[in-house]
Amino acid sequence: MPQTPRTLDDLDTPVPLVDVDRMHDNLRRAAEYCRAHGLAWRPHAKTHKSPALAAEQVRAGAVGVTVATVREAEVMAQVVDDLLLAYPPFGRAKLDRLMALPPHVRLTVAMDSAEALRGLAEAARAAGRRVGVLVEVDAGMGRVGVQSAADAVALARAAADAEGIEYRGVMFYPGHVRDNVDRQDDGIRTVSARIGGVLRALDEAGVPAGVVSGGSTPTFWRSHEIAGITEVRPGTNIFNDRTTAEIGACGWDENAYSVLATVVSVSVPGQAVVDAGSKALAKEEIRADTVGYGALLDRPEVVVKSVSEEHGLLDLSGTDWRPRVGERVRIVPNHVCVSVNLHERLYGVRGDEVAQVWDVAARGR
Amino acid sequence: MPQTPRTLDDLDTPVPLVDVDRMHDNLRRAAEYCRAHGLAWRPHAKTHKSPALAAEQVRAGAVGVTVATVREAEVMAQVVDDLLLAYPPFGRAKLDRLMALPPHVRLTVAMDSAEALRGLAEAARAAGRRVGVLVEVDAGMGRVGVQSAADAVALARAAADAEGIEYRGVMFYPGHVRDNVDRQDDGIRTVSARIGGVLRALDEAGVPAGVVSGGSTPTFWRSHEIAGITEVRPGTNIFNDRTTAEIGACGWDENAYSVLATVVSVSVPGQAVVDAGSKALAKEEIRADTVGYGALLDRPEVVVKSVSEEHGLLDLSGTDWRPRVGERVRIVPNHVCVSVNLHERLYGVRGDEVAQVWDVAARGR
Repeated sequence: MPQTPRTLDDLDTPVPLVDVDRMHDNLRRAAEYCRAHGLAWRPHAKTHKSPALAAEQVRAGAVGVTVATVREAEVMAQVVDDLLLAYPPFGRAKLDRLMALPPHVRLTVAMDSAEALRGLAEAARAAGRRVGVLVEVDAGMGRVGVQSAADAVALARAAADAEGIEYRGVMFYPGHVRDNVDRQDDGIRTVSARIGGVLRALDEAGVPAGVVSGGSTPTFWRSHEIAGITEVRPGTNIFNDRTTAEIGACGWDENAYSVLATVVSVSVPGQAVVDAGSKALAKEEIRADTVGYGALLDRPEVVVKSVSEEHGLLDLSGTDWRPRVGERVRIVPNHVCVSVNLHERLYGVRGDEVAQVWDVAARGR
Repeated sequence: MPQTPRTLDDLDTPVPLVDVDRMHDNLRRAAEYCRAHGLAWRPHAKTHKSPALAAEQVRAGAVGVTVATVREAEVMAQVVDDLLLAYPPFGRAKLDRLMALPPHVRLTVAMDSAEALRGLAEAARAAGRRVGVLVEVDAGMGRVGVQSAADAVALARAAADAEGIEYRGVMFYPGHVRDNVDRQDDGIRTVSARIGGVLRALDEAGVPAGVVSGGSTPTFWRSHEIAGITEVRPGTNIFNDRTTAEIGACGWDENAYSVLATVVSVSVPGQAVVDAGSKALAKEEIRADTVGYGALLDRPEVVVKSVSEEHGLLDLSGTDWRPRVGERVRIVPNHVCVSVNLHERLYGVRGDEVAQVWDVAARGR
């Protein structure tokens, strides 16, 4: 690939593309929503893993970014001075690396156990740092998070009492809510009631939550309906993806990310095979009742019906389009975060022109 | 992580481990099987993407390796002088890079279209190289490959006639065969009949196949039942994985690969959460009727029931074991090839000792 590709023709496939204008539109809309509702916008950098894109988010109005790994924290600290590690760090190696972040970085860590708090507090004291803590509350997803208001109070008190630690509030993740698919689900209201109960208990116990950090891409536009919320952490909606469009949380033409691929075989009738498989798109089932692992950006009726590592099979049964071998297509994957993670660089494009190149610098550990 | 980790305690999680002795046993068994049946053993390097492990395979008796991408070809050419690219290269960039492989490398490329042949032949002539070609035949999987004996003959003739090209035979992939799961499927016999018909047609047309390259890990131990086969290309069975064990193509204690992970949350009853999710294990459904995305190496009854990007949820419903936060576990993923591809290095271990470190050098493009 040339050092400075100028057009799509200079790029070898499979390669991830970002429509720069759509991305900026996505960022602007998110920022406007947060401003309108008085919410701090702390987008999750796991989606792009690119410091240059984190910097764009801050320029667009983000208060800082969220990260999931120590590596992401290290890379994002190059450009952002306010980080939320939404994951408990365990073990000397991770704690040492966190404490070695530049001193001007305001670090907050979310957790749901006394063990995680103890380790972080010890490391902070040894390093002479003060680290913020959010108590992670299970909002109903059943993945992580304290299970009751009483447990939230206990951990909040321990954080408030711990030397080296500054208790800052609570975090939750409403990633299980499917209200966009089925409005009768009423998931947002259930989350709101649950978090509201925890917030009241924290108030009564004298450890009120200054920060109430929630939000996800699927529920993004309804974040303001959750009582007490102060901050949102959407990741995906910088780019969007097929799942986000399928559940109605974005329009198809708000998809900024696609993988450029080449048709390599049309031998089997009714399908075309491209050189983007599970090592370029990833292989995640879509959340809604929808088949396949991606769809063509410009022909969403053409679905990637199956993938192996380097093969993606386009289902041609719903189209008259018959691609020839060598033709190129752009594929929107089901889940953008895991697709980005498979690539070393993202290519920002306007039409057929390559406008920017971003390193996916926070991949790996 | 220390420059030279000596024990598992020196490794930060999540991190991929290879049991060195089990891996060597797996290689030895594969080599013995091939010797016993007079088959050339050309393992697929996509599984490990590590030149050092390709060199181990050659030392164990492999005639060369198979690769799926140009990047894999470039990296493996550092240590192996006989490469099969089991994927048609399209576009100037890929062809230029292939032609720039060291001149001593004996290169063979598999394909199923006249377009792919034409591009390769032009590039070979321009570079003054001679490149081998295998005609890819669909053995019933319906992914790629010519669909009839007549099409195989036509492409073989075109290859035999093309300047710069040496027609070498046929390739097929029996990856759809499930005989290990259901012996009544009779998939191997169907494949054998199909390939046999193609071979007879090629003989009659005066373009006999010198190489008949088949084989996969699921069907590996029955490769010799396929009439005319001369070569096998298993990838997974250097390490094996949960799928390979579930379908009966290896024993559980032949799993050489696992991801070391740390328990980060036990807040939700009945489960434990580890720091290995879809960005460490990958998220592929298992092929058999089995739930989850992995299982513990030392407690196979404990399954990773779901994953998100950095979270894996261990289902504790079938065990009395109750891990504490901070405890470490080793997870065998469903599909090893896509898990390896998520990591930069593999750590070869004997017990708790780190014996070797291998770069996953052929990741990326």
